Amino acid sequence: MSSTEGKTINCLAAVAWEAGKDLSIEEIEVLPPRAHEVRIEIYYTGVCHTDAYTLSGKDPEGAFPIVLGHEGAGIVESVGEGVDNVKVGDHVVALYTPECKECKFCKSGKTNLCGKIRTTQGKGVMPDGTSRLKCKGKDLLYFMGCSTFSQYTVVADISVVAITPKAPMDRTCLLGCGITTGYGAAVITAGKGNGVEKGSNVAVFGAGCVGLSVIQGAVKNGAGKIIVVDVNDGKREWATKFGATDFVNPKELKDGETIQARLTEMTDGGCDYTFDCTGNVHVMRSALEACHKGWGESIIIGVAAAGQEISTRPFQLVTGRVWKGCAFGGVKGRTQLPDLVDDYMTGKLKVDEFITHRQKLTGINDAFHDMHAGDCIRCVVDMRAK
Amino acid sequence: MSSTEGKTINCLAAVAWEAGKDLSIEEIEVLPPRAHEVRIEIYYTGVCHTDAYTLSGKDPEGAFPIVLGHEGAGIVESVGEGVDNVKVGDHVVALYTPECKECKFCKSGKTNLCGKIRTTQGKGVMPDGTSRLKCKGKDLLYFMGCSTFSQYTVVADISVVAITPKAPMDRTCLLGCGITTGYGAAVITAGKGNGVEKGSNVAVFGAGCVGLSVIQGAVKNGAGKIIVVDVNDGKREWATKFGATDFVNPKELKDGETIQARLTEMTDGGCDYTFDCTGNVHVMRSALEACHKGWGESIIIGVAAAGQEISTRPFQLVTGRVWKGCAFGGVKGRTQLPDLVDDYMTGKLKVDEFITHRQKLTGINDAFHDMHAGDCIRCVVDMRAK
Repeated sequence: MSSTEGKTINCLAAVAWEAGKDLSIEEIEVLPPRAHEVRIEIYYTGVCHTDAYTLSGKDPEGAFPIVLGHEGAGIVESVGEGVDNVKVGDHVVALYTPECKECKFCKSGKTNLCGKIRTTQGKGVMPDGTSRLKCKGKDLLYFMGCSTFSQYTVVADISVVAITPKAPMDRTCLLGCGITTGYGAAVITAGKGNGVEKGSNVAVFGAGCVGLSVIQGAVKNGAGKIIVVDVNDGKREWATKFGATDFVNPKELKDGETIQARLTEMTDGGCDYTFDCTGNVHVMRSALEACHKGWGESIIIGVAAAGQEISTRPFQLVTGRVWKGCAFGGVKGRTQLPDLVDDYMTGKLKVDEFITHRQKLTGINDAFHDMHAGDCIRCVVDMRAK
Repeated sequence: MSSTEGKTINCLAAVAWEAGKDLSIEEIEVLPPRAHEVRIEIYYTGVCHTDAYTLSGKDPEGAFPIVLGHEGAGIVESVGEGVDNVKVGDHVVALYTPECKECKFCKSGKTNLCGKIRTTQGKGVMPDGTSRLKCKGKDLLYFMGCSTFSQYTVVADISVVAITPKAPMDRTCLLGCGITTGYGAAVITAGKGNGVEKGSNVAVFGAGCVGLSVIQGAVKNGAGKIIVVDVNDGKREWATKFGATDFVNPKELKDGETIQARLTEMTDGGCDYTFDCTGNVHVMRSALEACHKGWGESIIIGVAAAGQEISTRPFQLVTGRVWKGCAFGGVKGRTQLPDLVDDYMTGKLKVDEFITHRQKLTGINDAFHDMHAGDCIRCVVDMRAK
């Protein structure tokens, strides 16, 4: 039993009081976990574009004040009644895509999108409709059921998974979103549930954290050509380092040549799998149309801005292309995330290489600025450093 | 050896001299088949919306003069050198989707879209770049590699399949397009290659020949709810007769209610599979959005008018819906069409019920008028009746 069990914990957190403003480091109160909840001491958190999107105010569902952050690793401090999947002292990763193993979705065998706490998670509260995070007398909203920009957070028990304590937490935090999303898309979502097939030609649009992780998944599954498309030439070296075989900068296309035409030429008819990791709806169309007639699949991973739509001629689908997408790479957090940690521990999955920047909690606003620089893949925030 | 082998045959055909005009019954010359070609005496042909679309002039790739028709059954009159898949006297169905069993597409195991003669078929000629059909000294173009609106036609050997002579040809002609397209979409294209799963909830948009055949495929595979959506109330009885469990006329929705909302409510979260059999891009969107989050698949079967595009929010795909399509139902003509004939012969596949109208070749223009009447499912043309 920890000395803090059952008590409110006072700690530091980065609070987003309103859209478009810097985060504010505040002392907040973190209430004890209720039934089927887990209180975690967060050691490290990544900063992701989704955090920045909501902070910017462009997310129509974003509400304030809120504690952002959803790529977090830490240690269980205490658990509420009825929690049996993790125990005090477990090293854990927070899961913004929970897994209850009981709902229609979890039992379908067809998706990782658990439905159990979707409504309350969307509203920024715990499953019982309330918050465990308070500051200056106000309830703070949750972000994606996680709120890892706090030294302590309380999450639903289905939103957390225990992993081996041998894996360093400043790395495993990144498995909470970006790396898993890209890797899972390539090794799970693509194809018929086992990812891209051996020898497949793959194109990856956008070589950020997600795109580089798609490359890793494609390499793991034995893909043939792995072509990376990015407007930033600096990504060429990154792509190669992660296993890409080719790099195309769309800015260097010939007059009138489209990226889909170039990729179709490079792959003798089109790609077997393409992945959008940009969130740009025009890129999503190119990615679909770069697919091979008859079977090419395009997987949307990037999150588009509110209100934007994808479009194409239906002929693209009638002639056999498939348009799909995934969240969290199609990975079931509690069932499958430990496998990804194993892949990391055995050298199949690069994680260390993603960390280009580090910050302390007090420097978290700099982490957001870092992210928008072209040379940043991931910035990891040490939540306990002074 | 038939008495006509090696000779030019003079026979009647319905010639489309120009867009937007009635077909003209003409005596044409049908040259003998060259190497890897088959000359067929066409006994019966169906008339399909695709014929009407090209005749209307709206098809930007349509060219004239042409012999339309692609739903044909007949008997092999003679074969060219090197033909080994059919022989004189075989009862056959013409295949607008050929199957060479040798090209990248055929060998992929992933599609029925054979690539071998695609270019010449698209140009309206035989694989050697010429035509076997002449009238008044002019070459006539081929339609979809078949041109079944002629008493004799010559097709590539990969564009024809022999079937049991026990099956009546005035029925099997319809397996050359519409019925196979819908049935195949439900029993092959949907899901992971074996069609809709037992217990799946299915919605079918448009209850024409294709839509009714989707129902049949869904019934064969043991679907749960089979909901038919059609603006024509007269189709309710048809849908029920073919095995639909529910019928929704979108004209009867409540104010502000969308068809996707209605279907989602009827199926506790959305359909497992939806099929567009209308060719209307707005309906295609509704069909996608009526799918269940996490796994629902929407299959586009209908052919949209030139230049029209489909669109949706990418969130629909990121949350697990799949958008795909098929041509000829995903059916490999030479390998799989005989199975469909078996299903017909053993009562699993209704065909007779589709034939609401009959015409002689000389009345083929009436067949086009019939098709546009709401009470017509299929009109079969007897090519040999005086």
